[in-house]
Amino acid sequence: MLHDLGSRDKTFIDVTQRMREQLLGIVADRGTHECVLLQGSGTFIVEAMIACFVPRDGKLLVLVNGAYGQRICRIAEVAGRPFSVLEWAENEPVDVVALDQALSADPAITHVTVIHCETTSGILNPIAQIADVVANHCRGLLIDSMSAFGALELDCNALPFDAVVASSNKCLEGVPGMGFCIARREALVKTQGNAQALSLDLYAQWQGFEQNGQWRFTPPVQCLLAFDQALTEFEAEGGVAGRGSRYRENRDRLVNGM
Amino acid sequence: MLHDLGSRDKTFIDVTQRMREQLLGIVADRGTHECVLLQGSGTFIVEAMIACFVPRDGKLLVLVNGAYGQRICRIAEVAGRPFSVLEWAENEPVDVVALDQALSADPAITHVTVIHCETTSGILNPIAQIADVVANHCRGLLIDSMSAFGALELDCNALPFDAVVASSNKCLEGVPGMGFCIARREALVKTQGNAQALSLDLYAQWQGFEQNGQWRFTPPVQCLLAFDQALTEFEAEGGVAGRGSRYRENRDRLVNGM
Repeated sequence: MLHDLGSRDKTFIDVTQRMREQLLGIVADRGTHECVLLQGSGTFIVEAMIACFVPRDGKLLVLVNGAYGQRICRIAEVAGRPFSVLEWAENEPVDVVALDQALSADPAITHVTVIHCETTSGILNPIAQIADVVANHCRGLLIDSMSAFGALELDCNALPFDAVVASSNKCLEGVPGMGFCIARREALVKTQGNAQALSLDLYAQWQGFEQNGQWRFTPPVQCLLAFDQALTEFEAEGGVAGRGSRYRENRDRLVNGM
Repeated sequence: MLHDLGSRDKTFIDVTQRMREQLLGIVADRGTHECVLLQGSGTFIVEAMIACFVPRDGKLLVLVNGAYGQRICRIAEVAGRPFSVLEWAENEPVDVVALDQALSADPAITHVTVIHCETTSGILNPIAQIADVVANHCRGLLIDSMSAFGALELDCNALPFDAVVASSNKCLEGVPGMGFCIARREALVKTQGNAQALSLDLYAQWQGFEQNGQWRFTPPVQCLLAFDQALTEFEAEGGVAGRGSRYRENRDRLVNGM
C-alpha cells in the first residue's frame, strides 16, 4: 500500500487483469463467467448488481432474514424496481419450499436475491438448494456473498447464478474500498442499458476492462495493491478450503471456550 | 495507511468528523455549509451531486469545454435528468455572456454545472463570474472542482454555489478512494428523496454522519487515514495559498524550461 502506481500504466493494468482472473478461479470458472471490479463499499456492488441485473420492467423477489436482506429491499425501492419479499426471523434460514411456492405463484418475478451469509447474525442460507429451485423456475439468481465468498465453496458449474457479489475486505482479508461482481457472461450482456447511474453500470465497467484493461474511472490504487497481496496470501493458505478450515477452527474454539 | 481502525469506533469517528470540518474550513465556511464524504472515485461524487441536487422535474444546463463536461452530460442522460448544453472548444474558457443569455432564454433551467478546471486540458473557467451570473438568475450552481480544490481559492461567502465536489487524490494529495461534497445546507436539505441510488444519496449520507458520526456503509479506512495525514500536510504548507503557490512555481518552471 505504500507504493503508488499510475492506474493507466501497464503494471497496474496487469494487476487488475490478474485479480479478475484469480477471482474467477475462486468460483472455478471455465470461461463462462466474467469478473467486474467496482470502487466503493460492499453496498455499492450490491446496489450495482440489483439495478443492473433486474431490468426496469422486471420483478425481484428478496429473501430476507436479516439486515442486509432488508437493505436490498431499500435498494430496489430507491431504484424503482418492483419487488416482493419473503421474510424469516433472523435466526431462521431461508425455507426453499416457501421459495418454490412463491415462484410458482408469481410468474412476474424475473430475479431472486439472497444473502449467502447474513453478516449481522452469521446465519448461513442453503445457497445450493436455493439455486436449484430458482433454476428450476428459470429465474435469475443474484447472490450477496459478502461474508462468505472465499471461505465457503461457490462453484459456478454446480450452482447456477446470474451474479454473485462480494468485497475486498471480508473473507479475502484485503482492506475496504472495492467490491466485485462475478456474473454469467450471457446474463451480464443483457444488463446493457439497465443502470441508472454511470458509476454503478456493471456492463459499461466490464466493457472498459475488456477494451483496454483499464478502470473507466480512477481506481483505489492502494486498496487494489493490498487486495493483490491478500489474494496471494489467500492462495498460500490453500484457497477456499484452507481459509474456510481456519475459520471453522476459530469458530469451534470460540464456541467451546464459551 | 498501515493502521487498521474499526470504522465504527470512536477514534475513526473523530477522524471523520475532523476531516469534514477541515474541508469546510478550506471554503471558509461560517456555519452555512455541510461536508459529505463519499466512497468511490471522483466520478461517483460528481454523479451523486448531479442526481441529488437536480430534482427529477428540474433541468440542468451543462457548460462544456472538455471531457469532464461531456461526462456530466452522460451522467445526466443515464440519470434521466433533462439537460441542455453550452459548448466551447477545449482551449476556450466558458463565456459568461453566453451563459447569461442562455439563462434568460430558458426559465426551465434550475441548475447550472461547470468544471472548475478541466483535468484533461488544464483550462481554468471563470468560476467567480459564472457564480455571479447564475446567482443573478436565481439558479443553483454545481461545481466539479476536482482538479482545482485546495490549490485555487473557493470562498463560499464570496462565491455562491449549491454544491462543490472534489476528491481525495488531486490537489489535496491523498490517495484515491473517496470524494466529498461541500454543499449549502439549505440546498442540501432540499435534495431529500432525489437520489436513484442508495449508495449515492448525499442527503442520507449526510444524515448518517449527523446522527452518529459514522459512515452509513463501510468506508475505505486506509484511504481516509492517508487523507487525514494529507490534510495535515496541506495545512502545514499554508493551505490553499501555500499549495497554489507551489503549483504556480512548478508551472512557471515547466513553461520556462520548455
